[in-house]
Amino acid sequence: MARSLIIDCDPGVDDAIAILLTLAVPDRLNLLGITTVAGNVPLDLTQSNARKICELAGRTEVKVYAGCPRPLLRSLHTAADVHGATGLQGAALPEPTMPLQPQHGVDFLVEQLMQAEQPITLAVLGPMTNIAIALIKHPEIIQNIAEIVIMGGAVTQGNVTSSAEFNLYVDPHAAQVVFDAGAPITLIPLDTTHQLLTTPARLETIRQIGTPVAQAAAGMLAFYGMPDSQRYGLPGAPLHDPCVIVYLLEPNLFTTQAVHVAVETQGTHTLGRTVVDLWNVSGQSPNLQITRSLDAESVYALIIDGLAKL
Amino acid sequence: MARSLIIDCDPGVDDAIAILLTLAVPDRLNLLGITTVAGNVPLDLTQSNARKICELAGRTEVKVYAGCPRPLLRSLHTAADVHGATGLQGAALPEPTMPLQPQHGVDFLVEQLMQAEQPITLAVLGPMTNIAIALIKHPEIIQNIAEIVIMGGAVTQGNVTSSAEFNLYVDPHAAQVVFDAGAPITLIPLDTTHQLLTTPARLETIRQIGTPVAQAAAGMLAFYGMPDSQRYGLPGAPLHDPCVIVYLLEPNLFTTQAVHVAVETQGTHTLGRTVVDLWNVSGQSPNLQITRSLDAESVYALIIDGLAKL
Amino acid sequence: MARSLIIDCDPGVDDAIAILLTLAVPDRLNLLGITTVAGNVPLDLTQSNARKICELAGRTEVKVYAGCPRPLLRSLHTAADVHGATGLQGAALPEPTMPLQPQHGVDFLVEQLMQAEQPITLAVLGPMTNIAIALIKHPEIIQNIAEIVIMGGAVTQGNVTSSAEFNLYVDPHAAQVVFDAGAPITLIPLDTTHQLLTTPARLETIRQIGTPVAQAAAGMLAFYGMPDSQRYGLPGAPLHDPCVIVYLLEPNLFTTQAVHVAVETQGTHTLGRTVVDLWNVSGQSPNLQITRSLDAESVYALIIDGLAKL
Amino acid sequence: MARSLIIDCDPGVDDAIAILLTLAVPDRLNLLGITTVAGNVPLDLTQSNARKICELAGRTEVKVYAGCPRPLLRSLHTAADVHGATGLQGAALPEPTMPLQPQHGVDFLVEQLMQAEQPITLAVLGPMTNIAIALIKHPEIIQNIAEIVIMGGAVTQGNVTSSAEFNLYVDPHAAQVVFDAGAPITLIPLDTTHQLLTTPARLETIRQIGTPVAQAAAGMLAFYGMPDSQRYGLPGAPLHDPCVIVYLLEPNLFTTQAVHVAVETQGTHTLGRTVVDLWNVSGQSPNLQITRSLDAESVYALIIDGLAKL
Repeated sequence: MARSLIIDCDPGVDDAIAILLTLAVPDRLNLLGITTVAGNVPLDLTQSNARKICELAGRTEVKVYAGCPRPLLRSLHTAADVHGATGLQGAALPEPTMPLQPQHGVDFLVEQLMQAEQPITLAVLGPMTNIAIALIKHPEIIQNIAEIVIMGGAVTQGNVTSSAEFNLYVDPHAAQVVFDAGAPITLIPLDTTHQLLTTPARLETIRQIGTPVAQAAAGMLAFYGMPDSQRYGLPGAPLHDPCVIVYLLEPNLFTTQAVHVAVETQGTHTLGRTVVDLWNVSGQSPNLQITRSLDAESVYALIIDGLAKL
Repeated sequence: MARSLIIDCDPGVDDAIAILLTLAVPDRLNLLGITTVAGNVPLDLTQSNARKICELAGRTEVKVYAGCPRPLLRSLHTAADVHGATGLQGAALPEPTMPLQPQHGVDFLVEQLMQAEQPITLAVLGPMTNIAIALIKHPEIIQNIAEIVIMGGAVTQGNVTSSAEFNLYVDPHAAQVVFDAGAPITLIPLDTTHQLLTTPARLETIRQIGTPVAQAAAGMLAFYGMPDSQRYGLPGAPLHDPCVIVYLLEPNLFTTQAVHVAVETQGTHTLGRTVVDLWNVSGQSPNLQITRSLDAESVYALIIDGLAKL
Repeated sequence: MARSLIIDCDPGVDDAIAILLTLAVPDRLNLLGITTVAGNVPLDLTQSNARKICELAGRTEVKVYAGCPRPLLRSLHTAADVHGATGLQGAALPEPTMPLQPQHGVDFLVEQLMQAEQPITLAVLGPMTNIAIALIKHPEIIQNIAEIVIMGGAVTQGNVTSSAEFNLYVDPHAAQVVFDAGAPITLIPLDTTHQLLTTPARLETIRQIGTPVAQAAAGMLAFYGMPDSQRYGLPGAPLHDPCVIVYLLEPNLFTTQAVHVAVETQGTHTLGRTVVDLWNVSGQSPNLQITRSLDAESVYALIIDGLAKL
Repeated sequence: MARSLIIDCDPGVDDAIAILLTLAVPDRLNLLGITTVAGNVPLDLTQSNARKICELAGRTEVKVYAGCPRPLLRSLHTAADVHGATGLQGAALPEPTMPLQPQHGVDFLVEQLMQAEQPITLAVLGPMTNIAIALIKHPEIIQNIAEIVIMGGAVTQGNVTSSAEFNLYVDPHAAQVVFDAGAPITLIPLDTTHQLLTTPARLETIRQIGTPVAQAAAGMLAFYGMPDSQRYGLPGAPLHDPCVIVYLLEPNLFTTQAVHVAVETQGTHTLGRTVVDLWNVSGQSPNLQITRSLDAESVYALIIDGLAKL
């Protein structure tokens, strides 16, 4: 039976690939809706981009919602340098014709979680503002969350500051709310996603699929993450968000470790750091699991297969 | 014309007196609803207490909503020592028969502010969690807020810590969101409410009104704030929240000053402090006005008059 | 018998008046030496200014030492706007001919406190860097400290930020070390020194003394603190540091209260605040006494008498 | 020509091995003196332990000084669990007969750096309190510091908390002062020292040297770090402090990277973390170099050779 899923995201190129992969496996993932949040680009663009991607895949019936236009406490910090001013640079996608749902994204999340007969999985690809607001307003929804799988954080080095990964840096307070809520959480940190690189060979494989979806994906991926690739001296750009969807499909392609993770919200140099206690120095019980590694060849192959199906 | 008003509160004895005073002047204050929040006591009690008070006043048609059961980030800190375990110690009020509205308090706030033809005033008597969540989810509601009048903060000494007043201490992050939102705000700090004392003479005047409402009020006020009175060496207990309603009715009974106020969310000893720049040392433009003093005799007389009408 | 005293200071106009007052009462205060620190102006100026003032009083035998040129952790923040670029604006004093002692101010402090047969009193008129370094290096000196009387801190409003008074703001970490050390401390906060104003009448009285010392003092006081006077709407400039010397001579001219005071070293808006628990909300035992008020007429008269003796 | 060296330390077993190694190469390292600080154990023990080790090596002419008995701001946190209650568990060394120098360790440091004709190298093996106090009192000594080589910090995981290594955790504020002072600094973090393990084979090699020094060293190393070894799942205990001395002798056995490092002094979960910007995400210029790896076989061989010479 397909797993009921809500994607909470801020597309963003890697969010877009993650959505496409999800749409390629409807027998495995029953996508109840997509909620969007301010992050990589402002909310007006993330909600619009989510619809563009659904239309690209011919899936105009997917319900897309706009959530929170700002983080809990901090001013919005975007990443237009990485994703382009539109958030989907590299693909010339038409303005979407499918409608934005009138309901607020947080209200949709809460309503679904209140009504669900089966627990729902949340794939969280951006700052966790929407999830945090839902949990503060309605703590009881925790009981209907099957699992939250999050792209975010860093065990070693961050990518916005040396301490913090983008999603955590944008809304560290929301992350604290989510981590402390008591739901089963899998966190896929930068250390894992930096193992999944869009190498020239992989990019060429996507391009050769030849479909409009694959061509748009290749166009975006050719642009996306190039500065990161150069900065980190990697043979390709790290591909973050699709890891969440692959993890839902094939968790065995990842190694994991149960750990205690706290979010630093007070530091001068460490704001938004995920403080991961790998050695259990603190003696605190694990509150979530992180991925430590992935089988890059198999994970990327699964993504390419997905793109080829659309 | 009556001013459209929503009361956001955590009854609490002084909240109860503030609600009663509001119900006594329907020609002046058009109470659209009461939203409740966790604060003096947990949410289950604050929403129930709000209904008990409306029933006491015979106003069972008032719409009462339950809002957020917890602060944005901190664990809930209550004040049962001040208000008694029920939050309304001193009055033996029956369990309410009027219903709690099914809608979430935050959703009611947002809906009213989105639909309103005339701007709405918010009287905020507890931690600002509900208002903050509404502002994060729907920043556009700011345009329909006429004014936010808040009991909270301290220019000099706090009452939970030496730095912080209770409402700010319970949810300092929510206060930061509200103060930064750009709405017209009047803040009535502890320094003002400590000028409004329930002296034995005033308590006796209330008691002699003789109505059930007045007797219940007198019962609560005889208990409420006695530790404060002793601690501060005052000839009566400070009466905080009703100041907000009196300010709405007769602002001329208060002196005010436009100032810049920041909320400390990081300090070791100062968490939740309202940092009020009385001398404009910072050179920052005022972001709200605070009351500096009140005409205690007239303010208390107005409260007693209100109680006598019910 | 005269009380053995070391003055630790950062002259500064009000430090200068405090030194002059001390030199006027050798039968009461046995000045072992003056240690200087970076504060109102950099160390090169504060040590030079201390010597200028001793020479002005004809007391070239006084031992003046240079201490720390920087705060423990923060960059030096000066107050040249208040004291003028030289630190003694308003008096054209010649370059000093008396020598600066070669010993470091902290070493002098430690040596004196280690050797003393009678406990020594410390009058602290600037940032507490020197005292803190001495206490960190040699905690045992605490046993030979009779009392530390400090001008610093604010119960209500600060004068550098709305939270912090200058001496605390410049080196809050040093203040924390001093307050936690366990010595008997009297803190004279801004709230007290703002009661001691250099009114035009008092300034004229000083001027009419007619001696070179009085003329220099009048020259400096005519300049000093005028911005403060205007900013606070006071009929004269507050005169801070001399309060410490007057307190040593006539403590009965002050009212005091034993309180717990913590120093905020972490806040975003409250760095350097003296968190004074006037109402003992925290339940913590007092760790020092603060002055609450002074008899301004008598205190200023005592200062004028002192100036007249030189 | 031998390099002029002062060792600042808190023995501690690994400090002891580092001192012994230094004493074994007098033609390379001209040890001017050993200053001690509170750290692994209190100051009374660290100064006594330093003398015990010098006596063990027959070098009773070495000058040993007691420095600061406490960190700048924090309460002393020791590591008796790692080093035993005496700090040198595993070796039954007699009470030292060689004298403790009467001068304070900080005064010795300052005096040497002021007088030196050639710049002096500092080997810092404990919390940086002594060095920080010297730099605050006498910033000009920086000009005579050839290099500061420090064991401290962690790029990835700490050993006291998941964020912080012991020496940084004990006195993070001192580390901030030292890092910001502008001296040439090489920092050897936990990530490097965890590559240098006291394996059973290496321990046996030391034991077989057969001299009293080697037997004492083997006795201490058999006890030291066993909990770490188990906790980290390593085939031996990490040997931290001797890395500093080996680095001074053979820097080519280490790889290094110039980076910007800040010390977190404010975080809730990250106090004392060395925030190392490996990828230069911040764009800040490097302020020191860290070691990234070492040639463990050669480094340990050099240590064993040193022990064999004594």
